[in-house]
Amino acid sequence: MTAHKPGAASVALQMTDTHPLPRSEGCNPEAPYQAFGCSIFPSSMAPVAKQVSAALQMEEMGDTSRPLLFIQLNQLLSTPAGLEWRETARWIKFEEKVEDGGERWSAPHIPVLPLHSLFQLRTCLQEGKMLLDLEAPTFKEIIDKVLSGQPEETELQPELRERLADLLLRQPRHQPTKSLLWLIHELILSPCRGKAKSWSEPGAQLSKTPLKEQLRNQFKKKVPPGAEVAHVVVGEVEFLEKPFTAFIRLRQGVGLGSLAEVALPSRFLFILLGPQTKVKAYHEVGRAMATLLMDELFQRVAQQAEHREDLIAGMEAFLDELTVLPPRKWDPSTRIPPPSCLPSPYRRTTVHPPDWQSHSNGDMAAAGDRTGLGDLCPREELERTGRLFGGLLQDIRRKAPWYGSDFTDALHPQCLSAVLYIYLATVTNAITFGGMLGDATANMQGVLESFLGTAFAGSIFCLFSGQPLTILSSTGPVLVFERLLFSFSRDHSLDYLEFRLWIGLWVAFFGVVLVATEASHLVQYFTRFTEEGFCALISLIFIYDSLKKMLSLADAFPINWQYRLDNVTFYSCVCNLSIPGHSSARNDTLTPLPLAHQQPPAVPAGLSRTQCLGQGGHLLGTSCQYVPDVTLVSFLLFGGTFLSCTVLKHFRSSRYFPVGVRKLVSDFAVILAILTSCTVDTALGLETPKLLVPSELKPTNPARGWIIFPFGANPWWVCLVSAVPAVLVTILIFMDQQITAIILNRREYKLQKGAGFHLDLLCVSLLMAITSATGLPWYVSTTVISLAHMESLRKESASSAPGEYPKFLGIREQRLTGLAVFTLTGVSIFMAPILKYIPMPVLYGVFLHMGVEALNSIQLTDRVRLLLMPAKHQPDLAYLRHVPLRRVHLFTIIQLLCLALLWVLKSTVAAIIFPVMLLALVGIRKGLERIFSLHDLSWLDSLLPESTRKEAKRGQPREQEEESNGEEVGDVLGTTLFCSCPRRFCGVGAELGPS
Amino acid sequence: MTAHKPGAASVALQMTDTHPLPRSEGCNPEAPYQAFGCSIFPSSMAPVAKQVSAALQMEEMGDTSRPLLFIQLNQLLSTPAGLEWRETARWIKFEEKVEDGGERWSAPHIPVLPLHSLFQLRTCLQEGKMLLDLEAPTFKEIIDKVLSGQPEETELQPELRERLADLLLRQPRHQPTKSLLWLIHELILSPCRGKAKSWSEPGAQLSKTPLKEQLRNQFKKKVPPGAEVAHVVVGEVEFLEKPFTAFIRLRQGVGLGSLAEVALPSRFLFILLGPQTKVKAYHEVGRAMATLLMDELFQRVAQQAEHREDLIAGMEAFLDELTVLPPRKWDPSTRIPPPSCLPSPYRRTTVHPPDWQSHSNGDMAAAGDRTGLGDLCPREELERTGRLFGGLLQDIRRKAPWYGSDFTDALHPQCLSAVLYIYLATVTNAITFGGMLGDATANMQGVLESFLGTAFAGSIFCLFSGQPLTILSSTGPVLVFERLLFSFSRDHSLDYLEFRLWIGLWVAFFGVVLVATEASHLVQYFTRFTEEGFCALISLIFIYDSLKKMLSLADAFPINWQYRLDNVTFYSCVCNLSIPGHSSARNDTLTPLPLAHQQPPAVPAGLSRTQCLGQGGHLLGTSCQYVPDVTLVSFLLFGGTFLSCTVLKHFRSSRYFPVGVRKLVSDFAVILAILTSCTVDTALGLETPKLLVPSELKPTNPARGWIIFPFGANPWWVCLVSAVPAVLVTILIFMDQQITAIILNRREYKLQKGAGFHLDLLCVSLLMAITSATGLPWYVSTTVISLAHMESLRKESASSAPGEYPKFLGIREQRLTGLAVFTLTGVSIFMAPILKYIPMPVLYGVFLHMGVEALNSIQLTDRVRLLLMPAKHQPDLAYLRHVPLRRVHLFTIIQLLCLALLWVLKSTVAAIIFPVMLLALVGIRKGLERIFSLHDLSWLDSLLPESTRKEAKRGQPREQEEESNGEEVGDVLGTTLFCSCPRRFCGVGAELGPS
Repeated sequence: MTAHKPGAASVALQMTDTHPLPRSEGCNPEAPYQAFGCSIFPSSMAPVAKQVSAALQMEEMGDTSRPLLFIQLNQLLSTPAGLEWRETARWIKFEEKVEDGGERWSAPHIPVLPLHSLFQLRTCLQEGKMLLDLEAPTFKEIIDKVLSGQPEETELQPELRERLADLLLRQPRHQPTKSLLWLIHELILSPCRGKAKSWSEPGAQLSKTPLKEQLRNQFKKKVPPGAEVAHVVVGEVEFLEKPFTAFIRLRQGVGLGSLAEVALPSRFLFILLGPQTKVKAYHEVGRAMATLLMDELFQRVAQQAEHREDLIAGMEAFLDELTVLPPRKWDPSTRIPPPSCLPSPYRRTTVHPPDWQSHSNGDMAAAGDRTGLGDLCPREELERTGRLFGGLLQDIRRKAPWYGSDFTDALHPQCLSAVLYIYLATVTNAITFGGMLGDATANMQGVLESFLGTAFAGSIFCLFSGQPLTILSSTGPVLVFERLLFSFSRDHSLDYLEFRLWIGLWVAFFGVVLVATEASHLVQYFTRFTEEGFCALISLIFIYDSLKKMLSLADAFPINWQYRLDNVTFYSCVCNLSIPGHSSARNDTLTPLPLAHQQPPAVPAGLSRTQCLGQGGHLLGTSCQYVPDVTLVSFLLFGGTFLSCTVLKHFRSSRYFPVGVRKLVSDFAVILAILTSCTVDTALGLETPKLLVPSELKPTNPARGWIIFPFGANPWWVCLVSAVPAVLVTILIFMDQQITAIILNRREYKLQKGAGFHLDLLCVSLLMAITSATGLPWYVSTTVISLAHMESLRKESASSAPGEYPKFLGIREQRLTGLAVFTLTGVSIFMAPILKYIPMPVLYGVFLHMGVEALNSIQLTDRVRLLLMPAKHQPDLAYLRHVPLRRVHLFTIIQLLCLALLWVLKSTVAAIIFPVMLLALVGIRKGLERIFSLHDLSWLDSLLPESTRKEAKRGQPREQEEESNGEEVGDVLGTTLFCSCPRRFCGVGAELGPS
Repeated sequence: MTAHKPGAASVALQMTDTHPLPRSEGCNPEAPYQAFGCSIFPSSMAPVAKQVSAALQMEEMGDTSRPLLFIQLNQLLSTPAGLEWRETARWIKFEEKVEDGGERWSAPHIPVLPLHSLFQLRTCLQEGKMLLDLEAPTFKEIIDKVLSGQPEETELQPELRERLADLLLRQPRHQPTKSLLWLIHELILSPCRGKAKSWSEPGAQLSKTPLKEQLRNQFKKKVPPGAEVAHVVVGEVEFLEKPFTAFIRLRQGVGLGSLAEVALPSRFLFILLGPQTKVKAYHEVGRAMATLLMDELFQRVAQQAEHREDLIAGMEAFLDELTVLPPRKWDPSTRIPPPSCLPSPYRRTTVHPPDWQSHSNGDMAAAGDRTGLGDLCPREELERTGRLFGGLLQDIRRKAPWYGSDFTDALHPQCLSAVLYIYLATVTNAITFGGMLGDATANMQGVLESFLGTAFAGSIFCLFSGQPLTILSSTGPVLVFERLLFSFSRDHSLDYLEFRLWIGLWVAFFGVVLVATEASHLVQYFTRFTEEGFCALISLIFIYDSLKKMLSLADAFPINWQYRLDNVTFYSCVCNLSIPGHSSARNDTLTPLPLAHQQPPAVPAGLSRTQCLGQGGHLLGTSCQYVPDVTLVSFLLFGGTFLSCTVLKHFRSSRYFPVGVRKLVSDFAVILAILTSCTVDTALGLETPKLLVPSELKPTNPARGWIIFPFGANPWWVCLVSAVPAVLVTILIFMDQQITAIILNRREYKLQKGAGFHLDLLCVSLLMAITSATGLPWYVSTTVISLAHMESLRKESASSAPGEYPKFLGIREQRLTGLAVFTLTGVSIFMAPILKYIPMPVLYGVFLHMGVEALNSIQLTDRVRLLLMPAKHQPDLAYLRHVPLRRVHLFTIIQLLCLALLWVLKSTVAAIIFPVMLLALVGIRKGLERIFSLHDLSWLDSLLPESTRKEAKRGQPREQEEESNGEEVGDVLGTTLFCSCPRRFCGVGAELGPS
């Protein structure tokens, strides 16, 4: 990206010594270009910079890129009580400034400097005093040594020297970060005083031991361990006639008493004192020095430099990489917030020189991963061994060593929250799908079977699977298939459960065959196109189902929209036990006329609805079929739950309250929303539809038992014919299971314990056989809840330096949360008394929330939004920079068409071939290569394995193109794409706020 | 902020001529600093820069700061069909880039350059060919002249020259902005082809006449009128061995055929061709040249330069002002969006030199205004003349000349939207306050009086007032007073209307006295503290009233929370015409037992509720007092209206759809929300409470007439005693009226026609007399609706250059919209058949929206939010940089306490002294000067007139401090404070999106 000057440092080495004054031409950053016009794009690096890069190269392996210096700027200010040193800014990774009148730290920001001050600083370093590897135990001695050995021309008079030493040795006033306790203490002691005078008076001498304030300073926690202090000391002193500059490096870190804000050993010292000037020149030079010291590369240069020239060369290297902003287009006092991802400190040293190319590739692999190019190096888990069950054995071999830690790793409070959240989601899922399965199969499988099956299958899977973070559940596609199967059985007079048992057994068999032949290898063909199609379909099913369920409430509890207050006397409902011939009058509801014949002749009143219907009567009257208020309250609860889930979930990225509180609220968003809504519902007291948890352990349909017998009800050949539908189910299960698995095992989640595609499939297949034999529903991995599970188990680094974002460290991979969730689900059968207070609309609201979050997190949704956006308002997305907009739109529209087709197929009679259509997505994706160039596809989708190989053969993998562009996409708000922030593909959102 | 180098340009003048090669030391930006170490803060400017600044100084008066150049970068790219020139970027005020693969324009952004490329560019300008004031009619001739007259050493061989000329004369491929029509046309013709091949083949020669594509280019509209084209042409040519550079200025603009994207005359040409290099070096140098040419100051330098040295000096001046960003903390490829306000291009030239100090003050005055320092120069409208009615006469003299234009200026479609919006707000207000007044005064003043009074008083005010943008309305404080007055009259057996008439007459008298004595002068004591207290109170009244009204619906239409579906047979309501002894049974509703005795003995059924009650019967039964569904539907409508108002209002700042559509939706947000809600309500068909517009013209209370007689009902001394309450009312009216007036007449609204504080007060006072005599409500200006009125009449400049924000030009000041609103309000009495479809909950939703928006727009709300925010998450607000956080919090808490006190006073028996308390706010504000320093107050509030004078006397007005800080606050998102964007104090929000 930036070119390196030819031998700038070597020139510096030769020239600054010979011509120290009045100007040192060799050090001008543009000097090399003056050699000739524009043929100036060199490839060699300055020796020191090269040496540093090499050193870094070594360190990089150990990843010791943390900053080594805490830099504090002390400035001399004139107060009414006299001159005083005051801390005005500090740096670790970013700049923080003491606000002029605010007596507070600014937010961390990127230091923005005038180009000026850097050149002034260079002059200072060139001309000023420089003491490298000074040995002095106290600040006083340092000052003495600095002031004594001046070269003649700049020699200070002894008297001046004394005054300077006196000034420098005064106690600076720091701006400590106070703990809450301390603040309260101060407020009580001095509620009205402008300033707490805990610091000594301006004239006081520097303390040799750390002050109480230093030790109590909360900021210490933010300084990385092992860091040393660099002091930058600037000020205007009227008794000086010319500036006095010194740069001191101590041989080792020395505690300098109360000089720094925190009691850490000091290593560097930069002093700039001079006569009064206009504008804040010294301040800016001090800032420039601090910014320079903040640079990771220069820190190393400063530590290793042996001569002044090394330092200057390091600074040249720094100057070489500067970015400039034109004047008048940008307000330089704007504070740029730290980006969420920083460019690697090794970027420049690794990108350009050809001998490091190989490493640069490795560096890029992480970036490539996000756009699918990570697939260039196929996943270790999916490599074919070529042996029967080879993949399965490898899976077991990979996972076995982690088995113990899968239980010990779960000992963290976060897991508790995850269990609660996922438990509620699972139970909701079990109830909803249980209810729908019951509808579809005449209660052959009902809510109780759903609970039992979920608990059983889930626990087994969590104990033995390859990826125990997966949550099993009934899924939409399986439900669709069950419905079709039941209708088919009924239409052809087959016994549904027996037929289903055979299909299940066949599926299990096919599944084992797929495991044996390592068919999971094929998941590499499931690119983003397929994943998104599938994921969007499932999200839409969630959204559609929750809305449909809500609307069906309006049927269950109809509202009398024609109700007129004035006609209140005409609305009634009475029990009619007489002959049911008059029942036709029941339909006459739209005309609330005084129908005298509706008055019951002489029937004993006082029968409730149940009693009346129980005694064979029927209800007569204009208000019988209406239920007031329940539907509307349900809608209010539904909307309220959805909104509060969404708002609470996004509370994490709000500005209010400390991070801990926000995180807690966000983690427990769903539970809080459910609790609130339940409380409101209970307080209102209306008879809203509640969660009905079965309380007895017997099959929902009394016609069936707990074990399904394989023969007897159907003709013998059915067990063979079942193989045909079993193929369809196998495709369905395979896709449903493996797409979820591939999403969960994305690199961006930084999973440590590896995946187990083959083992997972085996578990699911064997569970199919068992659930078929016991008449329980079939289970596969469910994307939405599994991702919610992962997101609720995110590990993040405690942030260190101010302005740094917490790093995503990975997921708490363990088996215990899943196990607990499914155990609780099983136990829930006995928790009916508690769970019955949860209204169904609240659960539907949660479902809607999950569906919407999942839909929002796929790129397809972003691209659909692009369709509505004028080009100039579109966000600066990577693929928009590289693929023409109309191609992007075309891709989106094709995806939408596929989705629409899937939806239609799912809903119509052709639904039986739905699994095949899902598989056909892969074929369509293949066909897209005829419409789109591989370049476009590599940005919009990932490449299929063959295409990747083809591209690789053409010798133009996209990374290089990207590299030669030298352009990456990011935006000022802090989202840069080139570092490997986890891309949330289909996840339930978890935004990161700066800590 | 930036210091200027001593004589850099003069050095350049002397030295570059004498030592053209190999290096020109004089041009190093740091050369002057090498003269000595750090005593380097010069005050003189480079002669050329100075000359330019002086020229600018002249121009500034005429405000001709628009950019004069459109810059296009053409780059030589190798395509499969051979070398081709392609447009890759363009600049007017910001950079736009053709996305590498995207074939689209990027969003406009601030150009970010490597420091490198600028130095390379300087070398190019120093070494390369330079032709100033070339005269050539065609591009071919220009090229010929450029290639011919090379100095010997860099002389090109003739053959090479020919090849170069041939290359340069090829037709470049532009990236035109296509109109929708064109796009559709292309899509139909070539739906699947990758590129529309409308441009000629790569090898084709440049056309001498503009191409069709150039003429059709929509981008032309964005280029400021009178702009000329600067071409930057860069590329790698393998047959060149060393770079060829040329900078050409044509004597006058010449149309160069199809060279530029738009057919404008060309003026500058920069050519850089050279052998192949690594990285995109030429591209970056080209960008640097374009960025330089984009700079307003350099543009002038380039136009006036007579020698190469002038150009170089101009570039030095540019370099001098650069801002740099450190490497590795910032990704240089990040695109920084344009700030919403740009620093003035004259900033640097006007701030530093002492001889321009006076002007700099004027420049700062606008900035000072926002923080209250604008009050340093008191408003012309509020200056005391010292004569009786002097202020009034001045008001009339000021406003009279505009009277004609007050009607002609209204001829704009925007006014229609404003009328509709404000009409609805006014009618809602009239109904709500009418209803509440009716409640408070036993219908002595009711909805009809409210309508009539609003229409009458409003129209009169719009016709004769000083500030016709003001909307008159009943206001909360007045309502409070009326309620108290009525209770007092009732308790002391006084005739309310007669008593009120006398008070009104006294108030009118006092009002005239206040006008005569120019008391409006005192409004200068109403600082932000007072305004915010008042504004927050009124916003809270809006919010509280709308919520209270909604909750009262639950009383009007009670819900049977105990309703049980099973007991449906027990709920009934029958008419009982027999003796009312059994009526006690009516209370028995909580136990829905089968009460047989509630069955009517033998009463004729079939009477509706009205009929039954009309015949003297009463209703018996468990469902009589309940109304199902209505309350809940009302709440859904209320919430829906509020949410859709808010969402639609904020739609203006969304990314979707073109600006025009968004603006339209946002402008009509309230109407759209009302229409939608009404449609939903009508579709549902429930009997929700509707807007009841009186349809007959007679007083609501039949006991009163249209004219109130001054004597008769009360003892004679009442007319004298009335003076006491009249004093209170006068204070109330004065404060209510003048605070609104001062908010409306803020400088930030850029009103052209001036204010009329005295005239407004006179109008209000006289209207008081009339409305008292006719028994209509009292009217004063209402802040919320008036501000909504102003906001809906904002004028904005059509945006010009890409990335530039539209400028706020002012308000459409006229009398017609107000007049139309009040005429419509009057006519509304006859529009009952249409208006009766509007449900009241919808109107309450709109009220809530208005209250919340108003509350959100005051700084107090921001500061309350700060209380909940940890310091590190707080936004970068100006006052937080200058006032310690605990002082800010203290100020906020004092304000909140005052607000709480006002609220309590308003609600309790002490309410009668409420107006005095409001006035006491000014006293409290005065008292704050004992707790807070003037410095703190000047940031948090404005200064009172005495304090301002005191500060001014101390010689340290804050501007200077601010200036010496050299720091202004802004943030990356584009909100800078130092340019005079209108601060919305209490306004209904109107966000600006970039166009």
